[in-house]
Amino acid sequence: CDDEAASCSVPADSDSIRLNDITLQLPELRKLLQVLKHKRESCGGQVPKNGLGDVFLVGTGPGDPDLLTLKAVKVIQKADLLLYDRLVSNAVLDLVGPDARLLYVGKTAGYHSRTQEEIHELLLSFAEAGATVVRLKGGDPLVFGRGGEEMDFLQQQGIQVKVIPGITAASGISAELGIPLTHRGIANSVRFLTGHSRKGGTDPLFVAENAADPDSTLVVYMGLSTLPSLAQKLIHHGLPPDTPATAVERGTTPQQRMVFAELKDLADKIKTAELVSPTLIIIGKVVALSPFWLQSLTEASRLVEV
Amino acid sequence: CDDEAASCSVPADSDSIRLNDITLQLPELRKLLQVLKHKRESCGGQVPKNGLGDVFLVGTGPGDPDLLTLKAVKVIQKADLLLYDRLVSNAVLDLVGPDARLLYVGKTAGYHSRTQEEIHELLLSFAEAGATVVRLKGGDPLVFGRGGEEMDFLQQQGIQVKVIPGITAASGISAELGIPLTHRGIANSVRFLTGHSRKGGTDPLFVAENAADPDSTLVVYMGLSTLPSLAQKLIHHGLPPDTPATAVERGTTPQQRMVFAELKDLADKIKTAELVSPTLIIIGKVVALSPFWLQSLTEASRLVEV
Repeated sequence: CDDEAASCSVPADSDSIRLNDITLQLPELRKLLQVLKHKRESCGGQVPKNGLGDVFLVGTGPGDPDLLTLKAVKVIQKADLLLYDRLVSNAVLDLVGPDARLLYVGKTAGYHSRTQEEIHELLLSFAEAGATVVRLKGGDPLVFGRGGEEMDFLQQQGIQVKVIPGITAASGISAELGIPLTHRGIANSVRFLTGHSRKGGTDPLFVAENAADPDSTLVVYMGLSTLPSLAQKLIHHGLPPDTPATAVERGTTPQQRMVFAELKDLADKIKTAELVSPTLIIIGKVVALSPFWLQSLTEASRLVEV
Repeated sequence: CDDEAASCSVPADSDSIRLNDITLQLPELRKLLQVLKHKRESCGGQVPKNGLGDVFLVGTGPGDPDLLTLKAVKVIQKADLLLYDRLVSNAVLDLVGPDARLLYVGKTAGYHSRTQEEIHELLLSFAEAGATVVRLKGGDPLVFGRGGEEMDFLQQQGIQVKVIPGITAASGISAELGIPLTHRGIANSVRFLTGHSRKGGTDPLFVAENAADPDSTLVVYMGLSTLPSLAQKLIHHGLPPDTPATAVERGTTPQQRMVFAELKDLADKIKTAELVSPTLIIIGKVVALSPFWLQSLTEASRLVEV
């Protein structure tokens, strides 16, 4: 059975797959489905009790493949099909075995984003065929990863989903920068917000109101485009304009870029540095504890002196 | 040099070490320090440029050793000395190589807790001797782990500290229970609080005021003893009394125990179940998305029917 599964796998360059549309890959996926169904019929002993395959939502962390958990690596290595999106780094994809099928379901220039519904259907048909399906998610699947929605859908179809947590960007990037998210006497709580404005979502003003807490650390995911408005609102609701802040593009990867600034200047500094998504924003007194904060101040004063 | 280092190591049962006081181990530690200093003098090529060893703060996750990152495992395996406390599970300690020295610096019945100052001094003397020192922290070192304080002290002594993030209890336990910490239309942010009341700390009332946000998930670390007061305050400040909640003792370990209840009943249910520390509390509408929530309701109604 293992040989049959291997014979249908299509080891291919991950970059080229990343650019392919699901539609283009459908014939191959159908072929894989058939092989898996055949495999399921001919080796009954290895099939799970309910006849369905396992579906795993796996967090891959912020980018550095060494930040994967042992559990995630084990699950990735036994997968038949892996679905991934833009936030999963190529270094992580390199860990995937040659017999597994990798499918890109995120956004790519020139192609429409796969809708959540299409992803749900794909996960479902493969699980029904008895495959071990792994949905890779950058960071932690249950922190702004929409993992809950995929879990919800599959559970309603009777498919149990197991979640393997990942290092969320806030943890990975604060470790890299030496910023404690909480610190005695400085930050007694930490709050993760999304900067994404969603149709029908909550008024961001409301969040800003009770997020303007100088004794708490704020971490903003996907917040680049809404930062100017968020910063203004936070200051309006009482967060000091000189609150230390940082924005980190592609944190924990070799391409990491970052800027440090007081809250009132952060949006301008991000614009000057031309940071792009994915960028994580951390706002709070703890940012000044980073060795990089002092360094950025020194550099700034040197610029002024010149 | 490696042989010399090995000859001074004292492979010992981790349970017995866990019960030993630092004072009792001091003679052995001094011997190890001497060997390390000798090693440093006789093999200059392997010594770091500044003559100091590396100090790593390593997050070990919530308990399950498979939730360690690959990076953490690599660092643990090359350590000369590892310091750990109560929140690091025995399963994680089993990964430590036989040549490394393990030192318990946490609380044990009958012994006083090592103060942070003593821990700082220990980290410093070994780093000065050129050793690779690893401070193991349950969960993530920078989320209620006091990692920032150890980092701060050592940096002031000129010792650079590298932080390896860990899966924080909120991520590990929410994955285990199938609770998305954020979920479109249900929770647009998540906030981590500590239930610990600290001398000279912030009035918990203040935190409760702006933490009473029905569209956010609240995760309370070390919150067992203060939960009755916190729950009351959250309800007083507008969080619905029927907000779904859960408390999970020793999450992600084989000893995991949990209770589910509406916020107004959670403290009572925890008392009945006699949960002890470490217990994580999650409060918010997302808790009802866990398959265990429905199960707990069914069990409760069955009890009522009988």
